[in-house]
Amino acid sequence: MATILVTGASRGLGLELVKQLLDLPAATIDKVFAVTRSQPTPGLQELVNSSPDRLTNVMIEDLSDLSRATQASKDIEAVLQGRGLDILVNNAGTAVECPSGICSMTNQELLDVMNANVGSAHAVTTAFIPLLRKGGHRKVVNMSSALGSITRYDTYQWATTYSYKMSKAAMNMLTVQYALEFDKEDFTFIALSPGWIKTDLGGQNADIDLEVGGKAIRDIVLRSDRTDNGKFLCIRVPGWEGHKGMNQYDGLEMPW
Amino acid sequence: MATILVTGASRGLGLELVKQLLDLPAATIDKVFAVTRSQPTPGLQELVNSSPDRLTNVMIEDLSDLSRATQASKDIEAVLQGRGLDILVNNAGTAVECPSGICSMTNQELLDVMNANVGSAHAVTTAFIPLLRKGGHRKVVNMSSALGSITRYDTYQWATTYSYKMSKAAMNMLTVQYALEFDKEDFTFIALSPGWIKTDLGGQNADIDLEVGGKAIRDIVLRSDRTDNGKFLCIRVPGWEGHKGMNQYDGLEMPW
Ligand SMILES: NC(=O)c1ccc[n+]([C@@H]2O[C@H](COP(=O)([O-])OP(=O)(O)OC[C@H]3O[C@@H](n4cnc5c(N)ncnc54)[C@H](OP(=O)(O)O)[C@@H]3O)[C@@H](O)[C@H]2O)c1
Ligand SMILES: NC(=O)c1ccc[n+]([C@@H]2O[C@H](COP(=O)([O-])OP(=O)(O)OC[C@H]3O[C@@H](n4cnc5c(N)ncnc54)[C@H](OP(=O)(O)O)[C@@H]3O)[C@@H](O)[C@H]2O)c1
Repeated sequence: MATILVTGASRGLGLELVKQLLDLPAATIDKVFAVTRSQPTPGLQELVNSSPDRLTNVMIEDLSDLSRATQASKDIEAVLQGRGLDILVNNAGTAVECPSGICSMTNQELLDVMNANVGSAHAVTTAFIPLLRKGGHRKVVNMSSALGSITRYDTYQWATTYSYKMSKAAMNMLTVQYALEFDKEDFTFIALSPGWIKTDLGGQNADIDLEVGGKAIRDIVLRSDRTDNGKFLCIRVPGWEGHKGMNQYDGLEMPW
Repeated sequence: MATILVTGASRGLGLELVKQLLDLPAATIDKVFAVTRSQPTPGLQELVNSSPDRLTNVMIEDLSDLSRATQASKDIEAVLQGRGLDILVNNAGTAVECPSGICSMTNQELLDVMNANVGSAHAVTTAFIPLLRKGGHRKVVNMSSALGSITRYDTYQWATTYSYKMSKAAMNMLTVQYALEFDKEDFTFIALSPGWIKTDLGGQNADIDLEVGGKAIRDIVLRSDRTDNGKFLCIRVPGWEGHKGMNQYDGLEMPW
């Protein structure tokens, strides 16, 4: 039995991950907290309606606001009645395209994307550390991206999401720093590349169908352990392991 | 004969680099623009007084303000009377320590450091691209740090400058993205790790004396060429090439 919290659960990978988690027996995952920044979408509401005991929607209007995230952690602590939070998935994220080139990226955009993607993961993690300490897994999965791999930068020249790439590189650095600091307390922090999955953000030309991607994310979220602390992993998609295209689906480490 | 602009020239590595550049014959470097955000420090003023024809102080109060940086590029264009700017060194940078651990880093600090270190380099680069196009070298050196190497993260656990490390990882991603986009126009963009040099930021326990470090930075700024585009290089310090400590001084590539 484990408890898990997923941010950005209104749609896309976050919503699909919540769905896939509920598909598991309650003996594996008995409590899912689905964080959204506004009222639940119809898709999320449907899941809440069919699993009211196992799924709770939590609204945090601004994930980067530490005091708001801390309040939410206190509310969840009350719901958990003495149990801890086992796994935190910082999934919420956004991307801005600059089709006219890097010089058209404004610093305001850079800071906004940094705050949404990195500031949010940081504030939520900080806010939930006490509740994670009370949990058995002490695991935090930060949703990164292959586009955050500086080593592979020339693979993604076509993507004009400059600030997004910078935010994911910064998030990778955030992840390893948490990994180092909380290693002595047996935490596991990983940065996860979900490859390229069909969502609003991924678009419909992406490699992997949402359901398949959601399952693969669920698998790595659940099976990663202390030996993965501080690693940048990709998802493993059956049939795609030897894929020689732009993305990596073998469940192994990605280059920073 | 080449023209060069250095930001953060009030003190530390920026001021020392300016000094070392002026020590070269005018046939190599005939015009240096030393950018500061306030009135020149006594050290810089002294250099201006002794080389009034070769050294010009340019004040840009906020390097991250594109309109202000663009105005400065127009002013410098007028001074250059038809010549271009050959080399831009984005050296200005700042670090904040969080001795109580990563959870004590506020998102405001993260964004402020990101803006100072990355937003500044981005705005200045964008503003000076037209003048760099008119130059012969088309070279941009972004002052990064070994602490920005995600690969080497566990080497620098002692450093509690969390936001600084994230900003330098983000700056590395900024650098490679500029490198890709301007490759077709024969630009060279490099991210440079100066190792650990005795300045206000580096502290007095650092490995390398300021003058030695300044010379080594000058060397790599001048000798790097098109084959280095998109690389993360360190300085080469004679006698320190085989150094097996925390830092790398062989003038070769650093891991991202
Ligand atoms: N799809 C891919 O191929 C792919 C590839 C690499 C990485 N990723 C990463 O995977 C994560 C999920 O992506 P996705 O494809 O599912 O994207 P998506 O379909 O666009 O969904 C994004 C989710 O994040 C939430 N979100 C966005 N900005 C937010 C903010 N500022 N504050 C709070 N919530 C915010 C959205 O909430 P609202 O509904 O309220 O907007 C939504 O729940 C992201 O971190 C993304 O970078 C995706
Ligand atoms: N020293 C090292 O060992 C070391 C190692 C790795 C990387 N670096 C990098 O090398 C660069 C220079 O470092 P340093 O050691 O010379 O540091 P320093 O002695 O503290 O000098 C910093 C310089 O940057 C300017 N600066 C700082 N924040 C600024 C801002 N927001 N806007 C405009 N200018 C700003 C300062 O101007 P004011 O005088 O007006 O404050 C000063 O000129 C930095 O990018 C640093 O990250 C240094």
